Amino acid sequence: MPTRVGKYTIKLDTQPSILGSAAVVGKKESEGPLRDEFDEIIDDGTMGEDSWEKAESALQKRAITKAIEKTGLTAADVKLLFAGDLLSQCSSSSFGARELGIPFIGLYGACSTMALSLLMAGLSVDSGIADIVAASTSSHFCSAEKQFRNPLEYGGQRPPTAQWTATAAGTAIVGTSQSGPHIETVTIGRITDFGVKDANNMGAAMAPAACSTIADFLKDTGTKPSDYDMILTGDLGAVGTALLKELMQKQENIDISDVHADCGLMLYNIDEQDVNAGASGCGCSAAVLCSNIIRRMKAGELRKVLFVGTGALLSALSPLQGETIPSIAHAVLLSS
Amino acid sequence: MPTRVGKYTIKLDTQPSILGSAAVVGKKESEGPLRDEFDEIIDDGTMGEDSWEKAESALQKRAITKAIEKTGLTAADVKLLFAGDLLSQCSSSSFGARELGIPFIGLYGACSTMALSLLMAGLSVDSGIADIVAASTSSHFCSAEKQFRNPLEYGGQRPPTAQWTATAAGTAIVGTSQSGPHIETVTIGRITDFGVKDANNMGAAMAPAACSTIADFLKDTGTKPSDYDMILTGDLGAVGTALLKELMQKQENIDISDVHADCGLMLYNIDEQDVNAGASGCGCSAAVLCSNIIRRMKAGELRKVLFVGTGALLSALSPLQGETIPSIAHAVLLSS
Repeated sequence: MPTRVGKYTIKLDTQPSILGSAAVVGKKESEGPLRDEFDEIIDDGTMGEDSWEKAESALQKRAITKAIEKTGLTAADVKLLFAGDLLSQCSSSSFGARELGIPFIGLYGACSTMALSLLMAGLSVDSGIADIVAASTSSHFCSAEKQFRNPLEYGGQRPPTAQWTATAAGTAIVGTSQSGPHIETVTIGRITDFGVKDANNMGAAMAPAACSTIADFLKDTGTKPSDYDMILTGDLGAVGTALLKELMQKQENIDISDVHADCGLMLYNIDEQDVNAGASGCGCSAAVLCSNIIRRMKAGELRKVLFVGTGALLSALSPLQGETIPSIAHAVLLSS
Repeated sequence: MPTRVGKYTIKLDTQPSILGSAAVVGKKESEGPLRDEFDEIIDDGTMGEDSWEKAESALQKRAITKAIEKTGLTAADVKLLFAGDLLSQCSSSSFGARELGIPFIGLYGACSTMALSLLMAGLSVDSGIADIVAASTSSHFCSAEKQFRNPLEYGGQRPPTAQWTATAAGTAIVGTSQSGPHIETVTIGRITDFGVKDANNMGAAMAPAACSTIADFLKDTGTKPSDYDMILTGDLGAVGTALLKELMQKQENIDISDVHADCGLMLYNIDEQDVNAGASGCGCSAAVLCSNIIRRMKAGELRKVLFVGTGALLSALSPLQGETIPSIAHAVLLSS
């Protein structure tokens, strides 16, 4: 049963486990440093569909189906699915899940959705709401560009601070088990807004949210960065990572440099793949977590990973209306 | 602590209560049959803002603030906020909540969001995740028309099956208490899709979801419609209500006619207010539940209300891409 620890943190007494996970990615993602880690690589980004939105739904459905299959279960065994994505009305999740028959809770946490859905899955298992719960998310470079920026055909230039939305989906299946990485503790984030208006600099917008949630987690649990093998942020990229370290140091007097990693810096070869400040999109941290990180935890290479999903809660319209970018970060402590 | 009952239903052992609620509505809503029930009426639909999206954020913030105030609490007492809306990237919720400092979980359930956020709030309190939790949602006629249909200036004709998106926001504060309506049991819905493609006939798209969730709830709890004072659907309107009754009868052999009511038929004077098939939008069921229904439960006039929020999970784009409309319904049994 969940128990509150400090002001914003919740401990999961039964330590629900990740029973299995799957990551399905596009071609560009398969050419990066994690190329051998993924369950499936989609060479045709359209997935045989006639719109990018439908392609993303198919991508997410593939990850959910794969994760369930890898866990040795069927969709009927999964009692609850938490899923969300970047598209208007979270359509890639609803359309992706509509044929599965699993009770469905749609989430919106932008690029923090993997952490958010994972923590909700963990809390649901821990509190007896359901015994097996799926957490899923996706993003697609083409549907995201179309929605948030310019049509691909326009061939717009990207500033150096921009990140590349990953074409990727990840799903984790959470249940009770003695093996697999456990979800030990979670922190649900508060919205921060430091006044960043540049939708091509999400890293800067999200860094304060990551800082606030990491600081809350460490305070609430009375721990320090060196207690963890890794503090893994979602997708701050190069700009956001530098800002996070600076903010943690100056504002909180905490040095995370020795243990910090960022999914946005892990997915691509930044210097070679023309992705500017790194990767982003819900699928970025989902694909990194559901492949590389979980594998290394299972292998005993990583024991304690504080996964901090970061999300920029702007809308497709809000920057055009002069709005600043509210952001959020949710933390999940995984231990093996 | 939550306990599963049957296949899809969850019983809340500690019976969390609605400590307080608020409904804030626009001018048209204040001219309907529930005119004296609302906490605040907004004569100026712009809320003094320069876009409809910003107006809706302000509307939702007003409802959250009012509900907290009416409960005699401050924002700092609220440990968790579940909120969502119809806009792309759920922006009215994130922008509405960004200054409150409350840990935030964004939901997407379209017009089922009041039921979804309320059941998540109930489950969170019941399982000890948080002691005081807010559930909130909003919709705005002008932001919804702009996003899903045509610019207002276009003056498009509405077919008879269309519903009128309510300009309204509702918030409920859930905690542990001996008084106030209790959240007794909840059913988390599965996505249904009967192939309806007409985005001007949401009632028809959502009726099968309501049927499926009501049938699941009754089977799981071993109860019948006459065990309830009211089975209150979210916003099926006239077309969806007729279809729901027919589906329940023909498909499930259950007659709900004696106890059925629909928020979409309660908010406006359908014959006089030019709303065609009734009201819709997240704010419709939120405003009806958070005013009239909760008041009548507190007064002992209604004892057992099965509130079934219904949502059409289409996106702004999906009907233009020839897609059918997936729908969902979530049920919350309130008892006083």
